[in-house]
Amino acid sequence: MTQASIDVIGIGNAIVDVIAHAEDSFLAGEGLVKGTMTLIDADRADALYRMMGPAIEASGGSAGNTMAGIASLGGTGAYIGKVRDDFLGQVYRHDITAAGVRFETLAATAGPGTARCLILVTPDGQRTMNTYLGACVELGPADIDPDVITAARITYLEGYLFDPPLAQEAFRKAAAIAHSAGRQVALSLSDPFCVSRHRAAFRDLVDGHVDILFANEAEICSLYETDDFGAAAAAVRTHVAIAALTRSAAGSVILVEGVEHPVAAAPVARVVDTTGAGDLYASGFLFGLTRTLPLPACGEIGSLCAAEIISHFGARPEVNLSQLLGDAGHA
Amino acid sequence: MTQASIDVIGIGNAIVDVIAHAEDSFLAGEGLVKGTMTLIDADRADALYRMMGPAIEASGGSAGNTMAGIASLGGTGAYIGKVRDDFLGQVYRHDITAAGVRFETLAATAGPGTARCLILVTPDGQRTMNTYLGACVELGPADIDPDVITAARITYLEGYLFDPPLAQEAFRKAAAIAHSAGRQVALSLSDPFCVSRHRAAFRDLVDGHVDILFANEAEICSLYETDDFGAAAAAVRTHVAIAALTRSAAGSVILVEGVEHPVAAAPVARVVDTTGAGDLYASGFLFGLTRTLPLPACGEIGSLCAAEIISHFGARPEVNLSQLLGDAGHA
Repeated sequence: MTQASIDVIGIGNAIVDVIAHAEDSFLAGEGLVKGTMTLIDADRADALYRMMGPAIEASGGSAGNTMAGIASLGGTGAYIGKVRDDFLGQVYRHDITAAGVRFETLAATAGPGTARCLILVTPDGQRTMNTYLGACVELGPADIDPDVITAARITYLEGYLFDPPLAQEAFRKAAAIAHSAGRQVALSLSDPFCVSRHRAAFRDLVDGHVDILFANEAEICSLYETDDFGAAAAAVRTHVAIAALTRSAAGSVILVEGVEHPVAAAPVARVVDTTGAGDLYASGFLFGLTRTLPLPACGEIGSLCAAEIISHFGARPEVNLSQLLGDAGHA
Repeated sequence: MTQASIDVIGIGNAIVDVIAHAEDSFLAGEGLVKGTMTLIDADRADALYRMMGPAIEASGGSAGNTMAGIASLGGTGAYIGKVRDDFLGQVYRHDITAAGVRFETLAATAGPGTARCLILVTPDGQRTMNTYLGACVELGPADIDPDVITAARITYLEGYLFDPPLAQEAFRKAAAIAHSAGRQVALSLSDPFCVSRHRAAFRDLVDGHVDILFANEAEICSLYETDDFGAAAAAVRTHVAIAALTRSAAGSVILVEGVEHPVAAAPVARVVDTTGAGDLYASGFLFGLTRTLPLPACGEIGSLCAAEIISHFGARPEVNLSQLLGDAGHA
């Protein structure tokens, strides 16, 4: 096995976030379930945008956020995702490239525009997402470059990729290439409703093709169709080598070879916007793995990165995470 | 004089901000003067954007920010400014309308795209701005609706409007309409270099057509070509009825009829990004005036609004300013 020249390659939906404050009553009026992601079409995106408050635009996408975090931690990262050759596509490419992440996926030159996620942040800091997938539906196996996958220590897949039609094929291809090169494959379940939409496919992927699984309580419970977190945790142990299960303010728990490592959440002065919490937990955890740190330390770095991201609007780090780690004694 | 149905109408360059962190060395390498605004063309905007770090996009424009502040304070506001019928133009229109500000200026259907300001925020929280005026150069007297100006208690002009060629004519027209309707006219000097580019025109406007002047130390000193703030303050007294001179952390001083009211700055836990500090001071001050509060109270409200805006990225308020005032005992 040759030396990996990339720490992590992320594959995901390339989405620009449009973030605004909203009251709980607005969510209720629009029938939105707090904390989850709903897929919407272009017309609904326009209608919802018209009803939203003043917004800011910022590059997002779950795996894209994770890769920006990896780069900020000092890791080498690459990203595969599909934008269109439009204004938002340029913004997306600029932001992830400027963050230090290699991004070579060709933009679509026809079809729907770059994806947008309309994110409503309620006064409690929770985010509720409404995604118009746009150009993301064009991502397919042809976008997976075997050389880049082979060069990466870890291939990281976001569960949201189960929604666009061809992307599942793309990431099964990526997982197969990674494993035949002796690399690891990580997956985030992303969203409980996304899991329920594609449960059989998720279980199959987790069972046979994933080494490291990220999920929050709702997602892991959805995967194993139980309301009992303990039961879900027991089930997942039998399927993946490493599971990192996040529990919001209760921290996370890492399951590996019959051992359970609880990890505390890092303190946050004020939770402003939880968007990206899971994504940045994954950044820290995966970065730790690539540095062959013990799993509890990987979880602690994940907690620190998650705490930074929820202390401000937007899902990309506003400070140098490498320096943040150093200040916290993880240098 | 009929009852005013609008508290403040702002006229300005309608600009979407593109905000990124930058090191001091980056400013030095690009020959940029910290804290000021430089006009750039489309090619330079593209080149500078390529060199910038990951960014967020947020509606800005000095008078636009001020009007968003007025609306957040519970005032009724309107805005005149020129965007194009492109993606960023839609974003601008959405944000200011969603903030509760009336915005009826027609978008340009040809010519350059909606204006962008590339804002570099250094680790000290200072912002350095690079503005591509784009569609703003199309703003002209035809965009001034006499009925709306007449309906507004105060017409507020941003000094940046001296840069695009036809806008001076537009705001001289607006000032004349306002005064003949018995209304007040306010002006912000905006930027010391903008003042030096158009000093004679600024002095003429301040002398004959402005009732309320906003300026920071560098701007007022530039207007009267002196290094001595005291001398500049003495000079401005002879030309305008009310001058509100802002001094960053040293607060502000309000000059009226031979009296000087010093106003303290409001405390800020951490200065994140000073973009919009002057704009939001103007929001608070003008809002106070429309509620016929004493001038020191107007200044205090200005300080509170400025403190909110510099505590986060971006130049539009993230909290309800009316509630902020109430919490601070200004209800």
